[in-house]
Amino acid sequence: MLHVEQTTQQTIDRMLNARSVAVIGASNNPRKYGYMTVESMLNGGYEGKIYPINPKGGEILGLKVYRCLKDLPETPDIAVVLIPVHLVPAAMKEAAEIGIPGVVITSAGFSEVGRNDLQEEIVRIAKENHIRIIGPNIEGIIYTPNKLHAQFYPVIKNCGRLATMTQSGSLTNGLLGWANDEGLGISACINLGNQVDICESDFLDFLAADENTGAVIMHLEGVKHGRKFIQSLNDVGGKKPVAVLKAGRSMVGKKSVASHTASLAGSHDVFKSICRQFGVAVAYDIQSLYDYGRTLSLLKIPNGNRVMVISSSGGLGVLAVDEAESHGLSIPEIPGEIVAELKKLDFANPVGSMSNPIDLATIWVDEFEKVALLVDQHDLADVFIFNFGDPIPGAGDMLIELAKKVKASIIVSYMGGESEEQKDKPRLQKAGIPVLQTPERAIRTIAAAVRFGEVQRAREKTKSIDYQCADREEFSDVSIFVPEHTAVNLLKQYDIPYPEHGLAAGADEAVAVAEKLGYPVVIKVVSPDVSHKSDVGGVVVNLKSADQVRTGFAHIMDRVSGAVRGASIQGVLVCKQADEGLEVIIGALDDAVFGPIIMFGLGGIFTEVLKDVSFRAAPLRRRDAEEMIREIKAYPILQGARGQTGCDINKLIDLLLNVSDMVMKQPEIKELDLNPVRVYENDILVLDARIMKREKRKEK
Amino acid sequence: MLHVEQTTQQTIDRMLNARSVAVIGASNNPRKYGYMTVESMLNGGYEGKIYPINPKGGEILGLKVYRCLKDLPETPDIAVVLIPVHLVPAAMKEAAEIGIPGVVITSAGFSEVGRNDLQEEIVRIAKENHIRIIGPNIEGIIYTPNKLHAQFYPVIKNCGRLATMTQSGSLTNGLLGWANDEGLGISACINLGNQVDICESDFLDFLAADENTGAVIMHLEGVKHGRKFIQSLNDVGGKKPVAVLKAGRSMVGKKSVASHTASLAGSHDVFKSICRQFGVAVAYDIQSLYDYGRTLSLLKIPNGNRVMVISSSGGLGVLAVDEAESHGLSIPEIPGEIVAELKKLDFANPVGSMSNPIDLATIWVDEFEKVALLVDQHDLADVFIFNFGDPIPGAGDMLIELAKKVKASIIVSYMGGESEEQKDKPRLQKAGIPVLQTPERAIRTIAAAVRFGEVQRAREKTKSIDYQCADREEFSDVSIFVPEHTAVNLLKQYDIPYPEHGLAAGADEAVAVAEKLGYPVVIKVVSPDVSHKSDVGGVVVNLKSADQVRTGFAHIMDRVSGAVRGASIQGVLVCKQADEGLEVIIGALDDAVFGPIIMFGLGGIFTEVLKDVSFRAAPLRRRDAEEMIREIKAYPILQGARGQTGCDINKLIDLLLNVSDMVMKQPEIKELDLNPVRVYENDILVLDARIMKREKRKEK
Repeated sequence: MLHVEQTTQQTIDRMLNARSVAVIGASNNPRKYGYMTVESMLNGGYEGKIYPINPKGGEILGLKVYRCLKDLPETPDIAVVLIPVHLVPAAMKEAAEIGIPGVVITSAGFSEVGRNDLQEEIVRIAKENHIRIIGPNIEGIIYTPNKLHAQFYPVIKNCGRLATMTQSGSLTNGLLGWANDEGLGISACINLGNQVDICESDFLDFLAADENTGAVIMHLEGVKHGRKFIQSLNDVGGKKPVAVLKAGRSMVGKKSVASHTASLAGSHDVFKSICRQFGVAVAYDIQSLYDYGRTLSLLKIPNGNRVMVISSSGGLGVLAVDEAESHGLSIPEIPGEIVAELKKLDFANPVGSMSNPIDLATIWVDEFEKVALLVDQHDLADVFIFNFGDPIPGAGDMLIELAKKVKASIIVSYMGGESEEQKDKPRLQKAGIPVLQTPERAIRTIAAAVRFGEVQRAREKTKSIDYQCADREEFSDVSIFVPEHTAVNLLKQYDIPYPEHGLAAGADEAVAVAEKLGYPVVIKVVSPDVSHKSDVGGVVVNLKSADQVRTGFAHIMDRVSGAVRGASIQGVLVCKQADEGLEVIIGALDDAVFGPIIMFGLGGIFTEVLKDVSFRAAPLRRRDAEEMIREIKAYPILQGARGQTGCDINKLIDLLLNVSDMVMKQPEIKELDLNPVRVYENDILVLDARIMKREKRKEK
Repeated sequence: MLHVEQTTQQTIDRMLNARSVAVIGASNNPRKYGYMTVESMLNGGYEGKIYPINPKGGEILGLKVYRCLKDLPETPDIAVVLIPVHLVPAAMKEAAEIGIPGVVITSAGFSEVGRNDLQEEIVRIAKENHIRIIGPNIEGIIYTPNKLHAQFYPVIKNCGRLATMTQSGSLTNGLLGWANDEGLGISACINLGNQVDICESDFLDFLAADENTGAVIMHLEGVKHGRKFIQSLNDVGGKKPVAVLKAGRSMVGKKSVASHTASLAGSHDVFKSICRQFGVAVAYDIQSLYDYGRTLSLLKIPNGNRVMVISSSGGLGVLAVDEAESHGLSIPEIPGEIVAELKKLDFANPVGSMSNPIDLATIWVDEFEKVALLVDQHDLADVFIFNFGDPIPGAGDMLIELAKKVKASIIVSYMGGESEEQKDKPRLQKAGIPVLQTPERAIRTIAAAVRFGEVQRAREKTKSIDYQCADREEFSDVSIFVPEHTAVNLLKQYDIPYPEHGLAAGADEAVAVAEKLGYPVVIKVVSPDVSHKSDVGGVVVNLKSADQVRTGFAHIMDRVSGAVRGASIQGVLVCKQADEGLEVIIGALDDAVFGPIIMFGLGGIFTEVLKDVSFRAAPLRRRDAEEMIREIKAYPILQGARGQTGCDINKLIDLLLNVSDMVMKQPEIKELDLNPVRVYENDILVLDARIMKREKRKEK
């Protein structure tokens, strides 16, 4: 057969917008997925052709059953495969023969239960025949714009703006149930399963471009292709809000995830940092994932972080402010003259408070409206949150109109609103105004939307970045320690500042180098057998004279050969002693999941005990480096807390950018520690560099 | 009139169990609270007498209206006051005349809007006439065991085990609405308002003894009487679970709270620590407050922190474990031989995983039951959490029976369960098995229940503690700095170790003291004008000879008189130089709200920048001191992280206890800083003591 290669995106588009679907394993037994799936497709109102396939023939739910794919009157756009796992390879070959471009394999029993052989077989068949696979080990797929419910449960009749992508059927049921109950609906429901071909990043790219989708929520147990995922997050980042719930964050959880989907879960700290880098909201539980998705798919993305809290009750307003402050949102004060204007408005019971949080102590909707219009006119806030704690008659109509008039985004929290709440909630959400159950839940979603907006605006100003990096497969798994005097030459190429230095094979030579550099100096052992020099007595500092250098040299030789039996000692590195100063650590790592990652922290106890470090995926943009520095809890120390002089943040940013540049251009670097790095008021200096590299594999 | 004084507890009991209620300000206008309240009482099925009072007379909702209290055929147990604020004092006088023991004043317009005069007036009338007050500025009061709904909205027909106590009407509506929707009901609903007489602690004491109440949830904007509150928490602690949501945690929020209820909000860190001390769950939002209340009022309190996760879907189980680990719960491994037993059970589809989290991948209820029985038989866990992610037919019946057979406590999370979930949820909760919406929400409530259990068990072992402390009113507001050589004498009385030392007026004397102590020594300026000695150059350390002491002495005189113009310098304190060691800080403070509070931290950057400190209310029990030490993030450093020798935790505990003892017995101490305190492997030493005290007021 003639084959015209389609891109992954074209294939996903064709599969989700399929005009005809073969259901391989369709059944007349109502307890079987092969029956339930056909039923779902009918209940969902699918308008294309459904071709049930079963060797027994007959009819299912009024549809003619075909005995095999070859009997079909046309080539369907997709086949949904619902048969026992051992029959899947044969079915795929049949599909190939009639030229079906993509299959959705729901069947389980592949690598997740150790049958890697079966999984490899279907991948091979797919590659040889240019068939693309969604799954296996999933519940199916839903795309409401095409009324396609190729999944046995549940049927979502509402076409909404939210897309879900998950690794758990039960969790999906829960999320879709909530969306259904609220009348919100979804655009797409993607079950990821084993992702043997089309993976999370492919779907993300598709959904980013899909005009029916307003926001994407993901539940991930691991990431299939870390770098591809990063690239997708970056590309999607400017276009569409994304929220992620990462499972397997704990030690025990991680173990279960590994056995559950056989995927590798990276460190959650690294994962969270990468999400932050690309403006992705990190959910902390199922409910927050849903809340983020709901708000991000509806809310007009705010232009800034100023929140005006307007409540029917003071108590709710205070709680909203508490939550807002803990997420770094700003609660702008209302200037005195505007407070005066507000107080002049006509209120039935003028007992409220006109500072932010505004407590109107009213249930009259026109009073809320007047206040909001006046506040918006003075451009005091980017978001209005209305906290209703009683039934507010007419709130729906008023807010829908208000949203058309004001610059600020509008969100609502509604409690105890009884029938008024039940009536207005779906209407408001349909009009793009999210309604959350409590002030705190609403505020958290505002924080996510604000962050997305920040990243989106920053992204518009910078050019697009290529996150591709060297293929790890090209390198051997063996790590080799790079002696510091060699590492230092590499640093130099990337403008990474290191003290003036020289190599010396013996004590005399060391003195000569020291005299040239000027005292005081530091000397460090040079030996391929010693990577942690200080631990074995291989470093002596603050040597102020030739005599001290000689004594220091002898000491090092003594102690190192005592500590590391048979160590080959080539000499010492003599460095000019650096001034005292604040010490930080900069690290880099080729993460098994996400590729090159940069780390920053204050070093010592802060890094080892308090884990007060920040991460970003390389290559860093300038604002990534800035955020890394600001994100650590000890940041005030860098700014000069406790009467210390602050340090040169710009030089620190430059250094992070240079390290990022280096690890991207030198893919042989597997791990890097610059520790300590001294940061001064107007300068910066790397005092120690430890690099582990790996060799390129020989061509086979 | 003859008056027999009742205790506060007797009065609350009489008011909530009132057999007759006068409604002062009853009205025929359905939009008025005076109508709505009478209507609520009737709808709530109140079985006592309702006496509407209105000068107009007539009838309201079929009840005879009395023109004034004197016309009543009997003296009612309480009067609910719903009239404009300026009429309240007269009404109270009338109530006094006929001997009503307690009034519930809903009227607003007192201190919360600056009318302290009106508030003082009603307090005075109450005191003079032995009338007790609930309120003012509240929505009323509900006590379902007495079918008393003396509150205009909403009516809670279900008598439940949960009591609410709040400072926001809207928030109460929300909480009660949720309880109503779930068919859970409440026992009591207390609105706190201005608390001019009966306060949160009085209600807490009442609810602790109330057999109709299983757990108490509180929403507080401030604490009225901090020490009384602590005593109540301690007394309640062993009996009944309590959860608190503290509003006004943020800077802006705090400001709003102050203007909202004119109460003083203490530091949230101190508040949280005190809650932890007494096993009170600290909610982080309205929803978690409700969740804690729901679970704590229903769940059998677990005997320990071992959680067995049993799920219908692996995805939900992993999320439960992630959450459990972040709350310090234990996820015990199932020993191999028991896994083997589990695998031998009869399963329809034996595809699940039998490690903890157990993923049964089933919807068949008998399979859940078999697994739970076997696990319980081997005493592997204190709590079972069942995560259902699909409809599980028969789950209600099975779990209700299971709860009777197993030692472990049982909790359920149910998502996507549709009609099965809706049917079983109220039945399960009625049977004492809480059902939460997500695994994470369920786990958080387990953590709260486990902590309550821990505190309860620990409390059973220790004798009751008196938290009363000296009346702050007895002391002047002015703080006086206590010179270190005087402070040191106080430390000695309480066995607080300080280096050997002596006072010296001049250099010669200083040398003499140093010779007696032995070198090296430290000398510190003694001056009533200098409290921060180091800041003005008033300390010189590591003096190894008489010469160095003389030079040091001269330096101090020079620098201090340069830095503090006109400082009166009395001499120096000469101390034996202490060995290097790990430094911590121990502080004490007479908190404006909570009285004597002890603080512990690692000092320096950890305290000032990272705020890594812990608090407890004095007097400390030994386990309080232990927990304070373990709670700081830097605790691993005390244990000997980073190759350092660990330090003497027992000596540290003793020191904390001695400091606690000292501040309780010396109420003149307002602030105390022991900083630094050096902690060694087998010893401890306070190197600097800074005390601020206050004078007793003269008798007027």
